[in-house]
Order: sequence, then C-alpha cells, then structure tokens
Amino acid sequence: MRKLILELLRSNGLEPVSGEKISEQLGVSRTAIWKHIQALKDEGYQIESVQKRGYILREAPNRLYPQEINSHLETKWLGRSVCYEDCVGSTNNVAKSIANQGCENGLLVVAEEQGAGKGRLSRGWISPHAKGIWFSVVLKPPFLPQEASKCTLLAAVAVVKAVNKIQGVNAAIKWPNDILLNGRKLVGILTEMNAEFGHINYVVIGTGINTHGEPEDYPEDVRDIAISVADVATEPFTRVELLADILKNMEELYELACEQGFAPVLEEWRKYSCTLGQEVKVIAPDMTYYGTAIDIDEEGLLIVKKTDGELEKVVAGDVSIRPAAAQNNAYA
Amino acid sequence: MRKLILELLRSNGLEPVSGEKISEQLGVSRTAIWKHIQALKDEGYQIESVQKRGYILREAPNRLYPQEINSHLETKWLGRSVCYEDCVGSTNNVAKSIANQGCENGLLVVAEEQGAGKGRLSRGWISPHAKGIWFSVVLKPPFLPQEASKCTLLAAVAVVKAVNKIQGVNAAIKWPNDILLNGRKLVGILTEMNAEFGHINYVVIGTGINTHGEPEDYPEDVRDIAISVADVATEPFTRVELLADILKNMEELYELACEQGFAPVLEEWRKYSCTLGQEVKVIAPDMTYYGTAIDIDEEGLLIVKKTDGELEKVVAGDVSIRPAAAQNNAYA
Repeated sequence: MRKLILELLRSNGLEPVSGEKISEQLGVSRTAIWKHIQALKDEGYQIESVQKRGYILREAPNRLYPQEINSHLETKWLGRSVCYEDCVGSTNNVAKSIANQGCENGLLVVAEEQGAGKGRLSRGWISPHAKGIWFSVVLKPPFLPQEASKCTLLAAVAVVKAVNKIQGVNAAIKWPNDILLNGRKLVGILTEMNAEFGHINYVVIGTGINTHGEPEDYPEDVRDIAISVADVATEPFTRVELLADILKNMEELYELACEQGFAPVLEEWRKYSCTLGQEVKVIAPDMTYYGTAIDIDEEGLLIVKKTDGELEKVVAGDVSIRPAAAQNNAYA
Repeated sequence: MRKLILELLRSNGLEPVSGEKISEQLGVSRTAIWKHIQALKDEGYQIESVQKRGYILREAPNRLYPQEINSHLETKWLGRSVCYEDCVGSTNNVAKSIANQGCENGLLVVAEEQGAGKGRLSRGWISPHAKGIWFSVVLKPPFLPQEASKCTLLAAVAVVKAVNKIQGVNAAIKWPNDILLNGRKLVGILTEMNAEFGHINYVVIGTGINTHGEPEDYPEDVRDIAISVADVATEPFTRVELLADILKNMEELYELACEQGFAPVLEEWRKYSCTLGQEVKVIAPDMTYYGTAIDIDEEGLLIVKKTDGELEKVVAGDVSIRPAAAQNNAYA
C-alpha cells in the first residue's frame, strides 16, 4: 500500500495529491491513508501536507528501500525481488543462505551497513552505514562452473560503466575484482559460486561501492587506499539511481553473455582495464614474479609477460600494479 | 567418559573388566561407571555384566556413532571430527551449513537416515534408516576451483576400492559419480563446491552407499535399479568398518593428489571404470548423441568417440551405458 501511495505522489511531482483522490484510487479510507503517510514520514520520506490540497513528496530518504530501488529500476528480472536489511554481517552470506533455501534468478540483497563485509581471500571490506552501496545478486546462469569467474569481470564492467556516467568520475578495473579511482579502491567485487559437476547451482556476486565514505568512516590503514564516488563527482547523484543503473548494465551484459558467450563482455572489460599494459607484481600461490600484463584470455585469466619473456597465466593469487610512484604496495 | 569406557572394554575383548578397574583407571566412582554402562546399553551396546568379574562388550549397536567410527578409524585427519545425526534432510546440506560457519578440513557429517538425500541435478537419493552409509566430508583443498570436480572421481575410487574388498562384491564406477554393481546403483556421489575466483573455500563430497537396503525400503521405481552391498557380499561386514575403510582410502588419495596432482587418481579411476569402452548415450545440455566412451582426459572429462568418428568431451549432462540387453534406460 505504501509503495502505491509513493507511486501516486511521485507521478504527480510537485503537484499535491488529495487524500480523497488517494483514498479513491487505492480503495481505502482517508484515515488509513493518513496513517500510511505518517509511517512513510517515520521511514524518512519528506511528505508535505498542503492545507486542503493534499500531499507532496518532497524528498525520499537516503535509504535503499526496496520501493525506492523499484521505482528507479529498468531491469526485466534482476533486482525485481529484493531483500533489504539495515545492517547485516555480509550481503553475500545473506544471499547464499537464501539461495541455499532456493530462490529465483536475480534476487538482490542490499544493506545500509555490513558489519563483516567480505573481500577476496578472507579479507574484509569496510561498509559504513549509508556511505556506500553494499549489495549482492544471486544468479543462476546456464554457464559451466569453470566459467563462473567471468561473472566477476561482467560485474566489474557493469559497475564501472555506471559510475563513470557520473560527471567527474573516471574509474578503471584492476584485474580481477577491484575498481580503482586515482589509484585508490572505489569498488570491490566478490563472486562466490555453489556448483556441482557440470552445473552451477548459483553464483552470488557481491559488490561494495564507496559512494559517500569520508576518512573518519574508515580505519586508519584503509583511509589512504579508499576513495568514494562523492570525492570526485562534479554532479549530484543518489545511491539508489546508481544502483539501478548498475543493475540495468548487469542484466544487459548477463543476457549478452548468455546469448553470445563472454567475448563481448571481455572486450568491454579490456576498455576499462587499468591493469593491461602495466608493470605488475604477481603473487601466485606457489611463486612471486614480475612482468607486464598484456591481455586477458577467453577465460578471463590475466596473461603476464614475465621479465624473462615467458608468458604466464594468472589463475589465482594477487596482482599489484607497480607505478613508478611510491604507492608501490598501496593496492596489493 | 563413555568413549573411554568402551575403549577399555574393547581392548579387553571377551575378558571381563571389573567396575573397580574401570573406576580406578578413569578416576570416577563405581556408581558413576554403572550409570554410564546403563546409558551405553540404552544406546544399543550389548554389555554383559558377569557376576563379580565385571563387564564384557558383546556387541556394538548397528549405529555410526562418532565413538564407533573413531574406534575403527585409521586416518590422520579425515573424519577425526564428526557430526552425527540420526535423521537429517541431507548430509551435504548439514556439511555446507557447518562449513559456511567455518570448520576444519576433514569434517565428517554422518546420518542414519536422510529425509531428502540429494543426487546430481536436483535428483533425490533414497536413504532408509541404518540401511546404508549416508555421509559427507568437508575438504578444503589447495586445488583450483576448476579442479574440484575431480574430487568426485577421487571419492569414487576410494569407495569402490573399499566395497570391493568385501568378498563377493565387484562394483565399478560409472562416469562421473555413480558406482554400479550388476548394472544397478550401489553408490551415488554428489560433490558440491563453494569457491571464489582462483580459490576453493570448501568442497563437500556427499556419498550414499546402499549397504543393507531391501526392496521394501525403496519406492517401486527405485527397486529395480538399486542394489545393496549385503545383496552380494559373501562375508559379514559392518557399516562402520566399511566407512572407516573408505575414509582411509579417501585420505590417502587426497594426499596423493595434493602431492602429485590427480594423474595417479585418474589412473586408478580408469581401472575401476565400467564406462570406458562402452557404447554410451550422452544427454548434454544442448544435444543428445551416441558413441563410445574411450577415456577420461586429465580434467576428468569423459571423451566420447561419436558415431561419426568425431571426439567429444562431456563437460555436463548425463551419460548412460547402452548394454545389448533390455535394461537400456536402467541407469540413465
């Protein structure tokens, strides 16, 4: 009901909608409408009551409420079902636990805050309240398990395209799962898969985007390596619009990959990469080496030309870019 | 304490152990010992009280109690930590849920009965109470995610070697995850993996072994395709001994794979395969075709020479063996 009321108010813009009209259209009493309006105000909606004329929605709260996401969403199926929490441990863990019980393709789990946000290889991800977009989607792709890691690349492209649409933002993808801006971490992506032989049960793509984080939101050791969209954006943006835009990109790229394979996705990825062409240090499980990142192969693996000229594919481990500047280990 | 009492009784074989001796060795009162003995009897242990001489353990109950498994186990780490349940939905689901919270490498989950035992591709596995060995192990291998499916082959070898040690049993592996006996299903294996890019978080290998199932234990449509170890064994065996033997094989093969890679495991697999050399029907996600199963490749994928002479690798889907006899679809 509240969702319908919001839709009515929104569709009228700055023209007030009378309680009578809402009551008629939705078939409930004016008293009930009044109660819903109060509840919406409690949720943070700024709704103005104009004497004898009705209600105007002045501003939606800075929250990723399902109805807010829904009202901006342009996807067919991705994010159409939303699990929203104010604070969770990790949206990936929530998503996995729902997926284990069984859920549809495209479920979105979003939280204002993560107490134990996760990065790759058991690392953490700082996710302060309403200062970023912390979300996970559950996909049930027809791909083979060995192709699942390419979902990380797909998600990275979806995110970087959306953030770069905001004026002043010029981010790039660091292989395989980070998005950097001015050499600092803007976005982290963690893809987890549940699979059996020859069959993916589900993939959970978790994404953390720093949108409004400020130095005091981060522990000291993260302050110098994190950056937020708001730090560089030269136009206003909202989290909910950015999220809706990302989901739209993600759905498009996913459908593209389902129809044509990953080649077009990888081609897009190359465009946004800040790893290709760079001197890199590779810390693989069994060795550390240096070289130049020259390309990704059709599996999405990074191809590094080692200093001895030999080509090596990075199938696991860490890759750090080695700028001439002193930030050498900043994004290790 | 009960575990210690059982150990004392067991080590004495058919010689009675006096309550006084147990009391001394374990440092608890004779009354306490008597209470523990009663509790063990309630659990199904046949403990004889010999007037003035003490207790004899005549027979352990037909249960896969952790202390029973432990007393037969010859492994270093696999199955040393046990989660035992009388009845669960699926041991794989229990194992995954424990693994998601965090657990050590080698955890064993075992149940007397599964209400919703799982097979590949969302199929079920009938798991009647104490009529089989229904268990899952959690492994945290150093392999890459793309190698995880080979754990299924590893488990199949471990199981087939153990069951074939029982006189009268001559089972064989049907690619990728079943063990057949006289053309019927004796064992099913379901490997599930949780992975992120380049890193396996854990693998759960679930195994269901029909040991004592009788026709009335199965629904009608399964009766003709299932078989139990006891149907053909010409010597007595117990579930707990068989389980301990399987775990020992599994640990050995796992350590071998960690040290030398999967080649020796695949070599063993070939020896026990009933698929290789056979005419097969392959139902792949995108097509169905016929041919001869000629080998598995180093990834464990089945190589089929199609009727048109072309080689095809089976990366997903189903393979049924096509005997000349009428049972054509029996193990589809």
